[in-house]
Amino acid sequence: ARPAQLKGTLILVHVANMPSFLARTIYYSPIDHKNLNRVYPGRRDGSVSERIAEAITREVIDRSDYLVDIHSGDGNESLRPYTYWSKLGLDARADSLGRMMALAWGNDHIVVDTDRPRDLKASVYTQNTAHLRGKPSITTEAGYLGVAAEDMVQRNVDGAFRLMRFLRMLPGDVQLVEHPIWLDRTAVLTSPGTGVWHPRVDRGTTVQRGTVIGELTDFFGNVVAQVRAPFAGEVLYIVGTPAMSKGEPVGMIGQTAKENDR
Amino acid sequence: ARPAQLKGTLILVHVANMPSFLARTIYYSPIDHKNLNRVYPGRRDGSVSERIAEAITREVIDRSDYLVDIHSGDGNESLRPYTYWSKLGLDARADSLGRMMALAWGNDHIVVDTDRPRDLKASVYTQNTAHLRGKPSITTEAGYLGVAAEDMVQRNVDGAFRLMRFLRMLPGDVQLVEHPIWLDRTAVLTSPGTGVWHPRVDRGTTVQRGTVIGELTDFFGNVVAQVRAPFAGEVLYIVGTPAMSKGEPVGMIGQTAKENDR
Repeated sequence: ARPAQLKGTLILVHVANMPSFLARTIYYSPIDHKNLNRVYPGRRDGSVSERIAEAITREVIDRSDYLVDIHSGDGNESLRPYTYWSKLGLDARADSLGRMMALAWGNDHIVVDTDRPRDLKASVYTQNTAHLRGKPSITTEAGYLGVAAEDMVQRNVDGAFRLMRFLRMLPGDVQLVEHPIWLDRTAVLTSPGTGVWHPRVDRGTTVQRGTVIGELTDFFGNVVAQVRAPFAGEVLYIVGTPAMSKGEPVGMIGQTAKENDR
Repeated sequence: ARPAQLKGTLILVHVANMPSFLARTIYYSPIDHKNLNRVYPGRRDGSVSERIAEAITREVIDRSDYLVDIHSGDGNESLRPYTYWSKLGLDARADSLGRMMALAWGNDHIVVDTDRPRDLKASVYTQNTAHLRGKPSITTEAGYLGVAAEDMVQRNVDGAFRLMRFLRMLPGDVQLVEHPIWLDRTAVLTSPGTGVWHPRVDRGTTVQRGTVIGELTDFFGNVVAQVRAPFAGEVLYIVGTPAMSKGEPVGMIGQTAKENDR
């Protein structure tokens, strides 16, 4: 595609959270120790993460008609690609166009979120901030362990072009995922303690209710806890590095919707 | 091996730098922003990294006869396994036994360090602190990108058992590396700017003088600098993740010694 073919405006934010990117910190800013994706819509007079959120809300989300929050795998997470779609039931247009954006982007695994915050003043997440402001939005996940894996980079490039064709920003055939796998029950599992994490499943693995997805040992190698899948499903991500603190995520399980009519 | 077979005492420090381990920070403590392996021998009344260094100096190094500092690949580094041997020329016993420890451990690539600090009060590194106190010591490198790769874990286990057999702490045949590759010229290359790092070589690759080992782009993808090998050699490690700040290491090149008689 050539830039001259583009209709409308594409706003790209290359690195949303520069302090965390450069310091390579997981979840939290090295400056204010806050998670940028938990402080939306942000505060102009807040700490650095809150000010970044406020700037993104004002300069990006409020100026956009559609929003994609492209996640590329935290440094500790081994992910299989998937997309978050919010279905809050407050705004039928944002819900249904968000669904179409997810199908246009290209990941066949789509998490159906129905319980994100409904308060404009505490929208918490990037995607949710757009959604509550009437802008259809998705969050995409591709990548793992902080590595710029070429196939994952290409997925994001392909997704952006597929979505721009769907939105008629670029000419060309529209492609939608034909056989989406809707995941309408998900659980982020967290660590019951601090120690060394030993994952026992890979990203994308299918697990039964009760499957051990990983073990926590103390610093001497003694197993102190097992983390089990609370229901049958697929491993959307698993933490793939050893450091683990109490309450941190260890992985996420998604269960395929029984009916496919979303 | 059974514990009853052990002669002497094995002191194991499972995680030397707990704040950095749990916060998954690269190089620097999340608390005092110091590099533990640059503040030896430490200070009892110092900041947390300095206090850890002081405790390791007092409780581990000063109580030991031999010391191994087992590095397992920083979260951002893609490493090929190798061992650091210090040859300072101050203490023939520490120099020559350090050489034997390196051969016993098992990595065939051995960096010959001749320019570490010679000041007991500014020994800077863990290994160097032991060496200057008359305790033969090595630093070993195995692992990459913060992942607990099974083959790299096994290398460390094997190295520890090989070394304990060499030191007659355990019964069994002594094995030494038969054809060591001594690297007596090395360079840690650093980034000329802040941006996104694109490695262009893999760990272990042989490079010519002038080979581009990676490119730094700005946050928009424009190449702003190329980093080239300053001499022919082998890539001991290359930074494998994108975040890059000015002055940070991007990789290390080692040149094979012309004569093999070390």
